[in-house]
Amino acid sequence: MEQGSKTAHGWAARDASGLLSPYTFTRGVQGNGDVTIKVLFCGICHTDLHVVGVVTDAGAGVTKFKPGDTVGVGYFVDSCRACESCGTGHENYCPNIVPTSNGVDLLDGATTKGGFSDAVVVNQDYVVRVPDTLPPAAAAPLLCAGVTVYSPMVQYGLNSPGKHLGVVGLGGLGHMAVKFGKAFGMKVTVISSSPAKREEALGRLGADAFLVGRDAEQMKAAPGTMDGVIDTVSAGHPVVPLLELLKPMGQMVVVGAPAKPLEVPAFSLIGGGKRVAGNGVGSVADCQVMLDFAGEHGITADVEVVGMDYVNTAIERLERNDVRYRFVVDVAGSQLGVDA
Amino acid sequence: MEQGSKTAHGWAARDASGLLSPYTFTRGVQGNGDVTIKVLFCGICHTDLHVVGVVTDAGAGVTKFKPGDTVGVGYFVDSCRACESCGTGHENYCPNIVPTSNGVDLLDGATTKGGFSDAVVVNQDYVVRVPDTLPPAAAAPLLCAGVTVYSPMVQYGLNSPGKHLGVVGLGGLGHMAVKFGKAFGMKVTVISSSPAKREEALGRLGADAFLVGRDAEQMKAAPGTMDGVIDTVSAGHPVVPLLELLKPMGQMVVVGAPAKPLEVPAFSLIGGGKRVAGNGVGSVADCQVMLDFAGEHGITADVEVVGMDYVNTAIERLERNDVRYRFVVDVAGSQLGVDA
Repeated sequence: MEQGSKTAHGWAARDASGLLSPYTFTRGVQGNGDVTIKVLFCGICHTDLHVVGVVTDAGAGVTKFKPGDTVGVGYFVDSCRACESCGTGHENYCPNIVPTSNGVDLLDGATTKGGFSDAVVVNQDYVVRVPDTLPPAAAAPLLCAGVTVYSPMVQYGLNSPGKHLGVVGLGGLGHMAVKFGKAFGMKVTVISSSPAKREEALGRLGADAFLVGRDAEQMKAAPGTMDGVIDTVSAGHPVVPLLELLKPMGQMVVVGAPAKPLEVPAFSLIGGGKRVAGNGVGSVADCQVMLDFAGEHGITADVEVVGMDYVNTAIERLERNDVRYRFVVDVAGSQLGVDA
Repeated sequence: MEQGSKTAHGWAARDASGLLSPYTFTRGVQGNGDVTIKVLFCGICHTDLHVVGVVTDAGAGVTKFKPGDTVGVGYFVDSCRACESCGTGHENYCPNIVPTSNGVDLLDGATTKGGFSDAVVVNQDYVVRVPDTLPPAAAAPLLCAGVTVYSPMVQYGLNSPGKHLGVVGLGGLGHMAVKFGKAFGMKVTVISSSPAKREEALGRLGADAFLVGRDAEQMKAAPGTMDGVIDTVSAGHPVVPLLELLKPMGQMVVVGAPAKPLEVPAFSLIGGGKRVAGNGVGSVADCQVMLDFAGEHGITADVEVVGMDYVNTAIERLERNDVRYRFVVDVAGSQLGVDA
């Protein structure tokens, strides 16, 4: 074992079954600028991403964090720091980004092992501070779902009081977009294929209006009324009715990724100077701003907290959208490291 | 005939043949704020749009122009002045816009008759000044093709020295984008399906590079290198190879309108936070800024000037892209008003 490296306990899928089970592995050395984080909670979002934990050790050169700080790690733990994206503070688009899970470490080539383990070692520049006012379990999904919707909302000016935002799909991403939209003082309309979600959207989440996306009559009654639409749906769906909801020069943001290409008639864009942008998570700085905003406004994700041994069931349920709205694994409260 | 209205002579398609022929009609009264413009040149761009002429009379309340001024009129001659687009200086996206040709006058309900006639009467707010340094015939297409590419280039920051612009399609719109891009100090790459256009692009038009769009090898050799791509092609074509040319957060602008929808995989947008926007002409203010810029830099459209009696042939040739790059009718130099 390399000097300074430590035995770690975690869960991972290590065979063709795809099922996760406990295993023991070696964590990398805590290098210059790195902090070691005891994982408290790890969100599940198709992969084992976005961790909230507490700093247990800070390496030489660490200036931003000290042991005891509650911190978060999002979708990625490193980037090249040399490309145009890194240089302009958009390292989330670095072509050599290192995802938190199943990424390739830029220094030693090791595979990154995600947050289903007792500790992670991460350079301080890729760590964010979690406000004390936020409960760690419900803050974990902010690091992924939260920043994925918050970041483009700010980038495209969809954060001004009085503007009208459409949120397509009410899941992990969508429910965060509704919460941020209301906190920004916007009018928020939820567009969902499930009429059953109306009560949830208008009631507990505080949306202002609800449209059934498949109902052409409802959709056509609101043309040209929205400044922006965030489309979180990853099942195939037509986008023309969504573009029609936009005002001239309105902005659609795509954060859900259907397998089939979106069909976008050029004239649907040209006629009103409309825009479609994709967005992938956000920068570390975006993430910090988002967490600070969430802390001020008491915004958290709606989570179902489960033990590590429930993870395979959780993934199964996730695949059929059977969760409101994110699973979070109580890593620190689970037994790890019992090799199966 | 209404008091103050005048007999006008022009050409129009008035039966099912679609062929244009001379006719005589009644022009609307020159109202408060209107100027009467003697048409010198009218560009052909699928309809009889974008006029350059000289002011012959200025009505009460006209402050911006006086007889003798060389002026232009673009794709539209009026808008509602009350909607959000009009209020924010984007009247080109007004839902009640009045096209210069075949539009419906907001005041009297008359059909607008375009620029293939001896004179037009237009409110001063929809008229732009043509710099003296620009020859009127070659300036006419600036009012449509010119502003259609200039406006989104400025709007999306594709006007900075050192940035890299891809121009897809080398026709009326494309050749203007190349000229503006070079005048902005950008690196300009032309992407065309016609290898035969290489010499023209790199030689006379001054582009820096040329890619054959159908050549997958060439296209894949330049991934992630462009800040923006302006797509002027109205024939169906794949957009994924174009999106791949963009840097992270790069901007594609669609100004050509293929009949079939663009197929845009969500992941092609999400992975690099890329953007696709449509653009329809530009505001009156955009148009004036564009003309002033063109005047300073000596930028004109490449035109083939024809007589009014050549218009049907010109439209036929336009339909098979047989023009470099825009037809302009010498209206003042043609015989009008001889009823067929």
